Amino acid sequence: MRSHTYIDSMGFPSIMARILDGKRLASDIKEELKVKIENWVSLGNRAPSLRCIIVGDDPASQTYVRNKIQAALAVGIAAETIKYDETLSQEELLAKIDVLNRDEAVDGILVQLPLPGAMDERKICNAVAPEKDVDGFHIINVGQLCLDMPTMVPATALAVIEMLKRFKIDTLGRNAVVVGRSKNVGMPIAMMLHSDRNHDSGLGMDATVTICHRYTPREQLVTFCRNADIVITATGVPKLIQADMIKPGATVIDVGISRITDEQGKTKLVGDVDYDEVVKIAGAITPVPGGVGPMTVAMLMHNTFQAAQRIQDAKTLN
Amino acid sequence: MRSHTYIDSMGFPSIMARILDGKRLASDIKEELKVKIENWVSLGNRAPSLRCIIVGDDPASQTYVRNKIQAALAVGIAAETIKYDETLSQEELLAKIDVLNRDEAVDGILVQLPLPGAMDERKICNAVAPEKDVDGFHIINVGQLCLDMPTMVPATALAVIEMLKRFKIDTLGRNAVVVGRSKNVGMPIAMMLHSDRNHDSGLGMDATVTICHRYTPREQLVTFCRNADIVITATGVPKLIQADMIKPGATVIDVGISRITDEQGKTKLVGDVDYDEVVKIAGAITPVPGGVGPMTVAMLMHNTFQAAQRIQDAKTLN
Repeated sequence: MRSHTYIDSMGFPSIMARILDGKRLASDIKEELKVKIENWVSLGNRAPSLRCIIVGDDPASQTYVRNKIQAALAVGIAAETIKYDETLSQEELLAKIDVLNRDEAVDGILVQLPLPGAMDERKICNAVAPEKDVDGFHIINVGQLCLDMPTMVPATALAVIEMLKRFKIDTLGRNAVVVGRSKNVGMPIAMMLHSDRNHDSGLGMDATVTICHRYTPREQLVTFCRNADIVITATGVPKLIQADMIKPGATVIDVGISRITDEQGKTKLVGDVDYDEVVKIAGAITPVPGGVGPMTVAMLMHNTFQAAQRIQDAKTLN
Repeated sequence: MRSHTYIDSMGFPSIMARILDGKRLASDIKEELKVKIENWVSLGNRAPSLRCIIVGDDPASQTYVRNKIQAALAVGIAAETIKYDETLSQEELLAKIDVLNRDEAVDGILVQLPLPGAMDERKICNAVAPEKDVDGFHIINVGQLCLDMPTMVPATALAVIEMLKRFKIDTLGRNAVVVGRSKNVGMPIAMMLHSDRNHDSGLGMDATVTICHRYTPREQLVTFCRNADIVITATGVPKLIQADMIKPGATVIDVGISRITDEQGKTKLVGDVDYDEVVKIAGAITPVPGGVGPMTVAMLMHNTFQAAQRIQDAKTLN
C-alpha cells in the first residue's frame, strides 16, 4: 500500500501512485513455488520438467529461452532447451513434439515463437498436448479459458490477473479497459476480467470490460479510459496512454514493451504508458521494466508445476 | 431502409427507427439456402443431413426441435428427430452420439438442451464431433471462434451478426455494447464484434466492444449504452433497456425473450428492450417476436449446410 506525497512542479503536494512492483512479486511467487515443489518432490513425486524448443538463431528468442530455463532451474523444475537448426522442416518439428507429448518424463512443452517463416505457428501450437501446453496457446486451452473453465492460461495474461489479485485491486462491477486485442494477451485478459464467479474456473473477476484496439477512434479511447477503474494496455505504442486519460486513483497495468531512443541518444525500455505523468494521477501503476515482464516468467513456472500436478492427478485417477 | 416520421405525444414529428425484420430476412436466407442446396445436390452430392437428439419430454424442447426439423426439411436438409426417454443414462447418450459421429450419412448433430439434471452438458457438447457440431458448443469450435478462425458459430450469435451484415450496420471503429455474457450468446457476439479484419475468419467487424452483465452497476450500464452505436442485449430482463439509454440513431438488437402478463391479463412475448419507447429514438431496432428469434433457426440451417460442405471438402482432399 505504498503511496506517497509528491510536490508537483507548481509546488503543490499530490499523491503519487502505488507502484506495483512486478519484480519483487515475481521473486516472492518463485520463492513460494520453490517451497511447493520441494514439498511435492518430498512426497515422492519426480521434479516437474519443462522442455523449451527453439528453432533457428534469433538472438531475442535465445535470451528469452535462457531466462525461462534459468527461472525454472531456480524453482526446482528440471528444464532443458532443445535447439534445432532453422533448416528443420515443419513435419520434423511435429514429430519431435509428438515424442515429447508421449514422454512420461516431460510435463511442460514450450515452443519459442516466432518460428521460421515457412512454419504454421497455429498448427505447431495445436500439436502440443493440451495438458503439457504451458503457454496456453492450444485451441482447447483457449476454448476452456473462454468458457470460464479451469485451463492453462497464457503466461502474460495470467501475470496481469495475478498482479490484480495479489495487489488486491477490486474488480467486481468495476470498469476495466483492455487496450489491444491480441490473442495471447489482450483477449485472454478481457475474458478473465469479465469471468463469472459462478463458473468453474474459480476466477470470477466480474468486471465490466471494454476491448479497445487500433480501430477505436482516439477520442473514444480517451472516453473509455477516463471512465475506467482499471486500464490494461498491451499495444507496444509508447506514450499511448496519457495522464489526462486516467481517472484519479485508477489502476494502470502496462504490458507494452518498446525500445526507444531518448533525446540524449540513449536507448531504453518503455511501456505504452506515459509513466512519469500517469504516476501522478493513477492510484496504482506497474513500471516498465519491472512490472508485468518479470511476472510472465514466474507464471510460466506456475503453469509448469500445474501441468505436472494435473498429469500426476490424472494418472492417480486412472 | 424503412424509417418513417412519427408524431410524438407533444405533437412534434420524430423519426421512428428502421424495423429490422428478422422474420422476413430469415425467410429470404432460407430461400437462398434452398437454392444453394438444390444446386449442391444437383452436382451429385447427397442432401445435407441433420439429427436432433432430444432426451425426455420437456414441452418447450419438443416445440423447438419440431421447428428446427420443419425448417430443415423446407430447405432440403434430410432431418430426423431421435427421441430418448429421460431414463437414458449419460453413458448411453455418449454411445449414441459416437455412432452418429461415425455415421457418414450424418453431417449435423444437435443435442437439444437442457438435458436431464444428472447429465453433464459440457461433456455431452464436447462429445459431438467438432465438424458435425452445428450448435457450435464444442470447446474446439469455441476456441476457433475466440481465435478469429473459421469455425461453427452458435446459431443465435450468428443470427445477430448476420442481421448486422445484411442490414448494413457499420461496425468498424463503432462502439458496441453487449449486455449479457452467456457463453452461447453474449460471449460469442462480443468476440465476433471485435474480430480483426486481418484474421482468418473473414469476419473482421472491428468494433470497440463493452461487455456488461449483472454486476455492471445500473448507472454504468446507462453510460455505456448512451455512448454506443450498437446495443445488443441478451439477458431475459424485460424493459432493461430504456429509451433514455439509447443514443439517437443507434442500432438496437434484442435477443431477449420473456413471457409476461400485461395489465389486461394477457400473456405476451417481450424482449429486453422497452420497444414502444426505444423505437422512437433508435435508428434501427429488432422487434420481439419477429427479430432475432426466426433468424436463429435459419442460421442453424446455414450451419448444417456448412457442415455438409466442409465434411465433403475434407473427403475430397484426402
